[in-house]
Amino acid sequence: MNKTSPIDLCSHRSQLLNCFALGIALFLTSSAFAQEDSLKIRGIYDAALTEGRAYENLRQLCKDVGNRLSGSEGAEKAVRWSKAKMESYGFDKVWLEPVMVPKWTRGETETCYLLPDRTPLKVLALGFSVGTDGPLEAEVVEFQTMQALKDAPEGSLEGKIVFLNQAMNAKLIDTFSAYGGCAGGRVRGPSVAAEKGAIGFVMRSLGLRADDFPHTGVMYYSGETDSIPSLALSTNASYALSQYLEKNGSARIVMEANCEFHPDVESHNVVGEITGSTYPNEVITIGGHLDSWDVGEGAHDDGAGVIQSLEVLRILKESGIKPEHTIRCVFFMNEENGARGGRAYAENCRERGEKHLAAMESDRGGFTPRGFTVDASSAEIDYLAEWVSLFEPYNIHFIKKGYGGVDINPLKESGTPLIGFVPDSQRYFDVHHTENDVFENVNKRELELGAATMTSLIYLIDKYGMPEKIVD
Amino acid sequence: MNKTSPIDLCSHRSQLLNCFALGIALFLTSSAFAQEDSLKIRGIYDAALTEGRAYENLRQLCKDVGNRLSGSEGAEKAVRWSKAKMESYGFDKVWLEPVMVPKWTRGETETCYLLPDRTPLKVLALGFSVGTDGPLEAEVVEFQTMQALKDAPEGSLEGKIVFLNQAMNAKLIDTFSAYGGCAGGRVRGPSVAAEKGAIGFVMRSLGLRADDFPHTGVMYYSGETDSIPSLALSTNASYALSQYLEKNGSARIVMEANCEFHPDVESHNVVGEITGSTYPNEVITIGGHLDSWDVGEGAHDDGAGVIQSLEVLRILKESGIKPEHTIRCVFFMNEENGARGGRAYAENCRERGEKHLAAMESDRGGFTPRGFTVDASSAEIDYLAEWVSLFEPYNIHFIKKGYGGVDINPLKESGTPLIGFVPDSQRYFDVHHTENDVFENVNKRELELGAATMTSLIYLIDKYGMPEKIVD
Repeated sequence: MNKTSPIDLCSHRSQLLNCFALGIALFLTSSAFAQEDSLKIRGIYDAALTEGRAYENLRQLCKDVGNRLSGSEGAEKAVRWSKAKMESYGFDKVWLEPVMVPKWTRGETETCYLLPDRTPLKVLALGFSVGTDGPLEAEVVEFQTMQALKDAPEGSLEGKIVFLNQAMNAKLIDTFSAYGGCAGGRVRGPSVAAEKGAIGFVMRSLGLRADDFPHTGVMYYSGETDSIPSLALSTNASYALSQYLEKNGSARIVMEANCEFHPDVESHNVVGEITGSTYPNEVITIGGHLDSWDVGEGAHDDGAGVIQSLEVLRILKESGIKPEHTIRCVFFMNEENGARGGRAYAENCRERGEKHLAAMESDRGGFTPRGFTVDASSAEIDYLAEWVSLFEPYNIHFIKKGYGGVDINPLKESGTPLIGFVPDSQRYFDVHHTENDVFENVNKRELELGAATMTSLIYLIDKYGMPEKIVD
Repeated sequence: MNKTSPIDLCSHRSQLLNCFALGIALFLTSSAFAQEDSLKIRGIYDAALTEGRAYENLRQLCKDVGNRLSGSEGAEKAVRWSKAKMESYGFDKVWLEPVMVPKWTRGETETCYLLPDRTPLKVLALGFSVGTDGPLEAEVVEFQTMQALKDAPEGSLEGKIVFLNQAMNAKLIDTFSAYGGCAGGRVRGPSVAAEKGAIGFVMRSLGLRADDFPHTGVMYYSGETDSIPSLALSTNASYALSQYLEKNGSARIVMEANCEFHPDVESHNVVGEITGSTYPNEVITIGGHLDSWDVGEGAHDDGAGVIQSLEVLRILKESGIKPEHTIRCVFFMNEENGARGGRAYAENCRERGEKHLAAMESDRGGFTPRGFTVDASSAEIDYLAEWVSLFEPYNIHFIKKGYGGVDINPLKESGTPLIGFVPDSQRYFDVHHTENDVFENVNKRELELGAATMTSLIYLIDKYGMPEKIVD
């Protein structure tokens, strides 16, 4: 690690008040660093905005490959495309890491309608749902919250279809917080409903907009006995069903889906690296997930993230920056329904005896960049936050405590500081897990600015290292 | 003006260092204010996000009214719609302010093609361009910059069509700066070309994306003799024409347009106000422009701005906040090609003998809010900037020196501090002045967050007033 930075001297200790005085004393010497860094970062943004490859690469992934659920032919095509792309950029090493992934198929039929008029309700089966084995008709019981469903008496839902009509909280500025408040209903709702006797489960999609595009996403059964078919209704369909119930007191719906489980299959993480010139065994990982849901094109979720991670390495290489540490981009497989790629990668790192300086994930869409959240010690967060002023010319205003990412999370066990790239979240849940998550809904400059922002922080971490761990 | 705020005590003087010490002393008392303000602002955001009318009002303006160039039937329909809408909200006063506006019509024919294969080039006439009076064919001379066009020898363009192929600078993070660097070429390029003998003018559209949607916008002739027909080419068409020229050394194009000037007609600013309970003659104006170009729906430019300004008053009224000063929303007419509404409003204010506390404009699109720029004295800017921490929970990070807005600019003469609302700028020039500026390209939450941000700052200005003017 490079130990010459004055910022380092502070952050290696957690005595922040003393550091503050020291910081002022060192201001004149550190400003020379800051100026060099400012120029380097300006160069990184210029490269991303005028000679970037992110947008064209995302187009290829979305249009030439398409969506790519774990275990699908699309996923395997994506693996081949990604490996070839990394190889074309002449990184020092490119390889595949095997990982066994679940295979689930949606099937052709996927319908839901309201009786007696057979009014169609727009639906998508939830990922891992079982099929209905023909039309499934029953009376609907509506719940406004997951808690209300949990509170329903045992057996009270015998033979019913549960309708979980829980809206995301529009008051939360961070839409991921609103999503987090409802995702448990999708993941565990079917199981809870089945335990109380329900034979089917439909839910309001996890989106903040009134529209006709249902959002899929993963759910898990607890065992064999709670495997009831589970669908997401579009927000408009949920509203219509709820209004019907309010008006008529009761409702019967018919749902049908042909989803199927299959045995696990082998797939791969795709990994490329620029090997560190001084510390080849000290790694900074940057990644996103290559798999997507089986609707739309996985453009924001998470085509943007893998393409930006690739762009970090490409820009560093093209800029002639020779990193001291190994910079590695990882296209993780199976984030959406298992997160097995992230676990496999962490395990492989451990087996290789590598030390991780930091890991960064981009999995919040390709929107205009806002900052970073860091899952690490206070000293490490404070250390990174010192750099935020270097990002202010690009309208990036925070590096603060928060979540890293699903795929890099298994690296936490070995003490790796985890960094989540944070773009603006307002539009994310308009497209998340829907047919609308397509290339056309990604803005070129927003995608590029994100890549430049990520590259710049990686550049700084490589140049100045991270604080030594303090063992209490 | 309310003189009780500790912040006021500071800002009424420009002795900022003394103020800093005083500020610390007053910290404990002021924190009670800050907490009350935080809660009030949280309430404003909640109201905008859960009971807002901005999105539905914008839908009506875009879909029921449509585009609304000054002097068009659409503009008059917009005036009627706006007045009725303000009246429906029960504001204390609603009125129309007459303003004479130019009338220019695009005509039906609008074509351009490259010879010899008649390859079509996507075009839109620039606003105020004359027509061609039948097909106009000539050789094309390309210029990469406005300066190069200015440097062309007198008479060197005799009988030619000038092609100004000047690209916006993608490196500038603020896309309005990139626009500003090129807009002069659109406004004055035709006149400069004509002075050197050109008989027609085509230009690369002012957009940052490669696409098939030309961007219109205003241009002005210097007199009668330089009135040559002027069109904007889509960025893709510009690229194609430039490539053809590079390959073949020369090119001939045919352009045709039926644009026409008509005599000025009367139109109106639409004004609504909540009259101040304590200082009715002290006004805070908030506005955008009601007119739009005659393509698309003027959704971002500037449907978003007028609807957000309306929402400021509506939210204040619905929240039961009784402002001490008069809060007035103004839908200005004719920003796009004359800015006559803004001048008329400032003149009317002067005649009424009103004092303006501040004026705010929203005319940068309905995107996710980022901050405010202020065109005022340093003391006034510093005063407003003190409040930025109240906005940080909403990811709003700056209140800083900068531009106010075209429509409020005439109020500057009387010393009014001008405030420009600044949303994220990355997507604006994808839609600006094109067929793509439609309701569907506005995100509901981004629009609402902007309205809440504007309302919150207006609330603070009304509550605490502005610093007294210092006469040097």
